[in-house]
Amino acid sequence: MFHVKPHAVNPRHWSLGQVADAIGLHLRGDAARVIRGVATLANAGPDQIAFLANPRYRRELANTGAAAVLLHNKDAAACPVATLICDNPYAAYARVAALFEPIVTASPGIDASSVVADAAQIAASAHVGPLCCIGARSIIEDGAVIGPGCIIGTDCVVGRNSVLVARVTLVQHVTLGQRVRIHPGAVLGGDGFGIASADGHWLKVPQLGGVLVADDCEIGANTTIDRGAIEDTVLEVDVRLDNQVQIGHNVRIGAHTAIAGCVAIAGSARIGQHCLIGGAAGIVGHIELADRVTIAAMSLVTHSLHEAGEYASGTPLQPSAQWRRNAVRFKHLDTLLRECQRKPADHETDPNK
Amino acid sequence: MFHVKPHAVNPRHWSLGQVADAIGLHLRGDAARVIRGVATLANAGPDQIAFLANPRYRRELANTGAAAVLLHNKDAAACPVATLICDNPYAAYARVAALFEPIVTASPGIDASSVVADAAQIAASAHVGPLCCIGARSIIEDGAVIGPGCIIGTDCVVGRNSVLVARVTLVQHVTLGQRVRIHPGAVLGGDGFGIASADGHWLKVPQLGGVLVADDCEIGANTTIDRGAIEDTVLEVDVRLDNQVQIGHNVRIGAHTAIAGCVAIAGSARIGQHCLIGGAAGIVGHIELADRVTIAAMSLVTHSLHEAGEYASGTPLQPSAQWRRNAVRFKHLDTLLRECQRKPADHETDPNK
Amino acid sequence: MFHVKPHAVNPRHWSLGQVADAIGLHLRGDAARVIRGVATLANAGPDQIAFLANPRYRRELANTGAAAVLLHNKDAAACPVATLICDNPYAAYARVAALFEPIVTASPGIDASSVVADAAQIAASAHVGPLCCIGARSIIEDGAVIGPGCIIGTDCVVGRNSVLVARVTLVQHVTLGQRVRIHPGAVLGGDGFGIASADGHWLKVPQLGGVLVADDCEIGANTTIDRGAIEDTVLEVDVRLDNQVQIGHNVRIGAHTAIAGCVAIAGSARIGQHCLIGGAAGIVGHIELADRVTIAAMSLVTHSLHEAGEYASGTPLQPSAQWRRNAVRFKHLDTLLRECQRKPADHETDPNK
Repeated sequence: MFHVKPHAVNPRHWSLGQVADAIGLHLRGDAARVIRGVATLANAGPDQIAFLANPRYRRELANTGAAAVLLHNKDAAACPVATLICDNPYAAYARVAALFEPIVTASPGIDASSVVADAAQIAASAHVGPLCCIGARSIIEDGAVIGPGCIIGTDCVVGRNSVLVARVTLVQHVTLGQRVRIHPGAVLGGDGFGIASADGHWLKVPQLGGVLVADDCEIGANTTIDRGAIEDTVLEVDVRLDNQVQIGHNVRIGAHTAIAGCVAIAGSARIGQHCLIGGAAGIVGHIELADRVTIAAMSLVTHSLHEAGEYASGTPLQPSAQWRRNAVRFKHLDTLLRECQRKPADHETDPNK
Repeated sequence: MFHVKPHAVNPRHWSLGQVADAIGLHLRGDAARVIRGVATLANAGPDQIAFLANPRYRRELANTGAAAVLLHNKDAAACPVATLICDNPYAAYARVAALFEPIVTASPGIDASSVVADAAQIAASAHVGPLCCIGARSIIEDGAVIGPGCIIGTDCVVGRNSVLVARVTLVQHVTLGQRVRIHPGAVLGGDGFGIASADGHWLKVPQLGGVLVADDCEIGANTTIDRGAIEDTVLEVDVRLDNQVQIGHNVRIGAHTAIAGCVAIAGSARIGQHCLIGGAAGIVGHIELADRVTIAAMSLVTHSLHEAGEYASGTPLQPSAQWRRNAVRFKHLDTLLRECQRKPADHETDPNK
Repeated sequence: MFHVKPHAVNPRHWSLGQVADAIGLHLRGDAARVIRGVATLANAGPDQIAFLANPRYRRELANTGAAAVLLHNKDAAACPVATLICDNPYAAYARVAALFEPIVTASPGIDASSVVADAAQIAASAHVGPLCCIGARSIIEDGAVIGPGCIIGTDCVVGRNSVLVARVTLVQHVTLGQRVRIHPGAVLGGDGFGIASADGHWLKVPQLGGVLVADDCEIGANTTIDRGAIEDTVLEVDVRLDNQVQIGHNVRIGAHTAIAGCVAIAGSARIGQHCLIGGAAGIVGHIELADRVTIAAMSLVTHSLHEAGEYASGTPLQPSAQWRRNAVRFKHLDTLLRECQRKPADHETDPNK
């Protein structure tokens, strides 16, 4: 957030006991220890709390200088300092880190440098930062924060307490629910890519739908979500999109699905709830993914997936010289395997061959 | 478009007969039926027209509630409502939908919040929206619309009736033809990625060319098109780029080629006319694609393609457990196949197999 | 750069001898020849210098109309015009082209349309163009150029002589060294994609780190670099990023590494020095790449690479009909190869194998 005066700041320090109480965990260690922040296992100092969630970092536990570590019971014995035992150390860390996050409160009102259409409705408690542009019939609800340089076109709604960090564009007919958070450079509500071939040239297909983003979604920097061709493009509640994700027109993404950076989802695909889509994966148009589908990074989904589970495509990384030999074989795989299968034949055993 | 007062609106309704006449199709059904819009087969009501182009949706025809359906003759018998027969239902739909698209006309003039260089030339009939910036020696031609937040650098031309929807950046030496449409976040005319290795560090190679975009091109949100190193980067007429496409310096794209979202085209590649490049595909630099080449989604083109046709790379999606077993084999494919071929063996002629 | 009055321009012409002297090369040819610019071998005229670096273009040497050609000694005999012999023609070309690049000097001062927080510090010699927004506690150092439409949040530093071309966003806690160059649409310092699963919904993990970009880095259009979760995301000196690259939180990129367009690097990956990452490649999180690793275009790196060298994944492009037959076989590769291997029997024990 920008240009906003901090109205309140978090306390600079908590006791370790206060932290344990705040997140409801049992502390084994010195409750009076003063804590001033969070850190990694490797770099934490004596007034910081660290966490162990990814087993990759377990080797750093023995030498940690942290005041205390959030970890699973199974790792507690190996911890040389105070412990806060939890089933889900990463979620617990998120809660602890929030205690130390600077709170920035945006002051209500519209910056004088912004251009707001007469027919727009801005709640008195909303913040509209510098150099924004808000179009006709758009509504900014209570407590919403429109950071600097945002452009909101016509017929949009920014729901209560939603935050457009900076330089977000809502083109038209975009409706955001409550507590939606959108990062800079994101473009929602642009024309879907609808073109019809006619006599050797392209005919633009009018894009008449909108975009609906339900409560608690988060949308990354430079991500694009096109508005629907006829009906709306929809993100259900608590969908989380990383940076540079592309969502085509009329896509529907189920609640609680998370999509990593650079994923491309083509028009009219329907993604289930609680799906996890790995970075730079692709999903073709007009297919359907069941709930709880996981797609590996950089995989391409070309058909509907009716069962929950984990899916992948591609080939493993290799030194290029090795890769090239295998890749050449792939080009003839069908023929080569037919030969192998057919094999029989005495003359194929010709040693001169 | 934003902040522009609708100067004219389409009629809110047409009779079915009027629609048929407007697009030149034969109607089988009640010509007097009042039509207020378009919709999908599944959701159309009695005052809406639907269409059937993608066979995936044929199952929805029998129960459609539409007033009429645009469809191919071969599907007409199965249609329970009025029909508008056409060879190309999607193109016909585009024309019908255009009848119901709200027309927004931008008012001529330059918004007071914009910053325009003295040496820029803006046609009296052009619209420059709020918070734009137009640089020296740039020209905005008749009827062009520069939406809010656009930045046009030096030595650019925006041709007649071209539309920069909002927050488009033309860095320098970018020339747009007529009726070009560019979506928010697109950046044209940035420096190409030219770096030369010299004594262990990188030396920036000056980028001295520009970008030429011919008539009737459309460029998606957050797409980037670099200017040429020496000569220009060129899009011929009627090229259609989806969102988040990356076009390197000195690329040339032939007329009527369409490129889906997230495609990356490296420097100095030359793409033919009427090509179709699938989503998230990659094309390496300094190669040439013939006319009418189609590239499947997420394929990588590493060599020139001299013949029209469809090309693909990659492997199919599978449940990860299966994929892993196959992928491991790929790593040793050359060796394994050599072994199989070498194999010999009488047993292979076993007739019971 | 925009809206800035050229304070100085390069001379419009040099003699060929002057060019040779300026870059320290031996000229074979007419030193008095007037040179007005650079061009490609194919299109150069008699007052232009061309270069031959990529062997693909060697066939254009015989017919070049250039005044002189920068080339390697081994190509000199085949050159019909004057020569400037060099070991690294592309680097030499970069230096020659720089002689003819228009120099645009930004005038010091802050454009009246920009919004600058009281608590920001802008050096007197820095340029802040139109419609920028600079937040509290941010520092713009001597000679820095902030092009139009840039948004710099709180607690950022733009080092001496760094250039933000236009519409760049530094969200918060972003520190740029000297001579850093960032292209339009880039977003640095956005929240990393940190979400923790808790009781079926997502919990946002506070992102408390920043971004550090060392001297002489270049960052392409619409590239995104998230700030760290706890510690900082770091680019060491002379890192070069093309357009639409995505850098996750806590990534560290070694000095002199170059990354082509559309690459995605997931959180906490560590890339060595002098690496070359091909276009649209992917690198998963929490892994490490040694110095001087080269990754082929569109490859996916899923494990640490401890040795310098070239790596690749994927399969070669083929006509789709052929590709499909091979791809189908890939789905059953493990089974098929097992069958092939199993096949014979006695012979498999052949000790000569």
